[in-house]
Amino acid sequence: MNVLSYAAQSASGDLAPLALERREPRTDDVVIDILFCGVCHTDLHLARNHGGFTSYPIVPGHEIIGRVRQVGAAVQRFKAGDLVGVGCMVDSCQHCQPCLKGWEQDCAEGATYTYNSIDRHDGMPTFGGYSNAIVVTEKFVLTLPEGMDPAGAAPLLCAGITTWSPLRRWNVGEGSKVAVIGLGGLGHTALKLAKALGADVTLFTRSSGKEKDAFRLGADHVVLSGDPAQMAAVAGRFDLIIDTVPYDHDVNPYMPTLVLEGVLVLVGYMGPLGTPVNAGAVVRGRRAITGSFIGGIAETQEMLDFCGKHGVVSDVEIISIQQINQAYERILKSDVKYRFVIDMASLKS
Amino acid sequence: MNVLSYAAQSASGDLAPLALERREPRTDDVVIDILFCGVCHTDLHLARNHGGFTSYPIVPGHEIIGRVRQVGAAVQRFKAGDLVGVGCMVDSCQHCQPCLKGWEQDCAEGATYTYNSIDRHDGMPTFGGYSNAIVVTEKFVLTLPEGMDPAGAAPLLCAGITTWSPLRRWNVGEGSKVAVIGLGGLGHTALKLAKALGADVTLFTRSSGKEKDAFRLGADHVVLSGDPAQMAAVAGRFDLIIDTVPYDHDVNPYMPTLVLEGVLVLVGYMGPLGTPVNAGAVVRGRRAITGSFIGGIAETQEMLDFCGKHGVVSDVEIISIQQINQAYERILKSDVKYRFVIDMASLKS
Repeated sequence: MNVLSYAAQSASGDLAPLALERREPRTDDVVIDILFCGVCHTDLHLARNHGGFTSYPIVPGHEIIGRVRQVGAAVQRFKAGDLVGVGCMVDSCQHCQPCLKGWEQDCAEGATYTYNSIDRHDGMPTFGGYSNAIVVTEKFVLTLPEGMDPAGAAPLLCAGITTWSPLRRWNVGEGSKVAVIGLGGLGHTALKLAKALGADVTLFTRSSGKEKDAFRLGADHVVLSGDPAQMAAVAGRFDLIIDTVPYDHDVNPYMPTLVLEGVLVLVGYMGPLGTPVNAGAVVRGRRAITGSFIGGIAETQEMLDFCGKHGVVSDVEIISIQQINQAYERILKSDVKYRFVIDMASLKS
Repeated sequence: MNVLSYAAQSASGDLAPLALERREPRTDDVVIDILFCGVCHTDLHLARNHGGFTSYPIVPGHEIIGRVRQVGAAVQRFKAGDLVGVGCMVDSCQHCQPCLKGWEQDCAEGATYTYNSIDRHDGMPTFGGYSNAIVVTEKFVLTLPEGMDPAGAAPLLCAGITTWSPLRRWNVGEGSKVAVIGLGGLGHTALKLAKALGADVTLFTRSSGKEKDAFRLGADHVVLSGDPAQMAAVAGRFDLIIDTVPYDHDVNPYMPTLVLEGVLVLVGYMGPLGTPVNAGAVVRGRRAITGSFIGGIAETQEMLDFCGKHGVVSDVEIISIQQINQAYERILKSDVKYRFVIDMASLKS
């Protein structure tokens, strides 16, 4: 089937309209008319081939909200007209140990990602959500809770699950003390989710002036990470730190702010930590540096259901698809509160 | 009371006999005639002021086995003639949250260490186990299980608890896959303890020729960490890695050998990790880098009781106190299998 998309054709990363073919729906497929698609920093990295593994043309977008147009004969959970979501993955082997555990992101044979990946059945490239429609196997389609704002829901499919997964792994709830480093797409979502889970929530930030927004988004406290006195005042305080910083940074100053056996979880950066990690900071106090990467499909549905119940959606700035290149430039300047979401109705115009 | 010790008087670290005064026993004190004292790498570091915080004269030694000479009026658990042990700590505040949890090593007011510390009641310096006797508050005296070889037991007080604590924290037992990096005082103890707990045990080593010893000590497998093929063959294998390397080293090659959510625990090194830690290796797979530092007093008794039941003691080379300076030089060359233990009878001669 033919769809209209916005694609990058080279590492310049400039996106422009492109007509593309998606597969004819299989019996277990759901065809989704895309309403909104969030703009993740990863979209920009992949469009511009920052990792060196982009195949062109690339259609980014893995924070997709849409309405079911039609379903294959074997599809059980969805019907035409349903509001649904699609996140970072559209398939996995479904038989390895991680898949059986619900950790499709760790699929031993490699998950099929929503874009810049190869469909494991027909060998066709996958194309993401900057498009008017997508075809996804039923198992990787999420149900949108009733009444949830579809534009605000879009970023939950990546930023939401990425921060939800570690909050749940470490059983955050009433009585937990959680800190979040960084107030971007991931960070503002982490504040909202941690607060909705009942935690006492602190934002670590490098720059002042973010207090008002932070408090509105769920923070109980704001700590300027560059102020030694403020850092000392929170020594030994946090059970869990969600570190959303998307570039190389020094994690050492945060380690003493953890309780004994506390955990710092990297969720925004996958490169080398250029500042040597101080082993003493993990040996004394048995603190840990770990990370987390998106989350499984069942866990993503759990997060959406929780957000539906607690009225959590992302703070978004809605743009037209024609503004996408400009939006990328603004992302590079952190000039977004807190996530761009493309209104895909603009694609038709 | 007067005791004879071996002490270093300056950062040259050379040890020589010195008559010293220890406190008169308080009502809760146990006076112990020292039979054996293990030689830990930390002894050498402190004797030579490698950390810059040594007070001279220093009497090292925190792997102490002895026989009770006399007890204070309030002492309940010990009587003259009992075989006992003393480890790295001789006191703590006993009222902070960590102390109440049995984590005296994390005492909020600072534990009193066995040497190079200040007694929290009388302000006198503490002196370690290279001595004919020591005076220790009852709460920090350990019971030696019946029939345990006292020389082989000495290193359990530091090397034993240091490796036992993480093995227990991560519930190692039947079905666990544990790897140990390094075959020294800590490493050989970790092999024995992990095996006795029922785990499948692997030794990572840089040099071949250690297989025979490793298998005898409890390893089921030996992997040469410099051999990419051997490393690839154990990808995704270990639930827990106990990293006993006592100097700066690259932890990145070990991370992919952990299972998803597996943990690498540093126990031998407290400085900066000079090779940048690859955040991707902890984000993808949610693996953790953490550490562990000795262990609490109740946990130490638990370890000793376990070792008594399972016939675990350290492999030791018994030396006289007069050989201590030479032993330090041999430690620097890793020329010891696997721990020097001083027969303190030599001090009288």
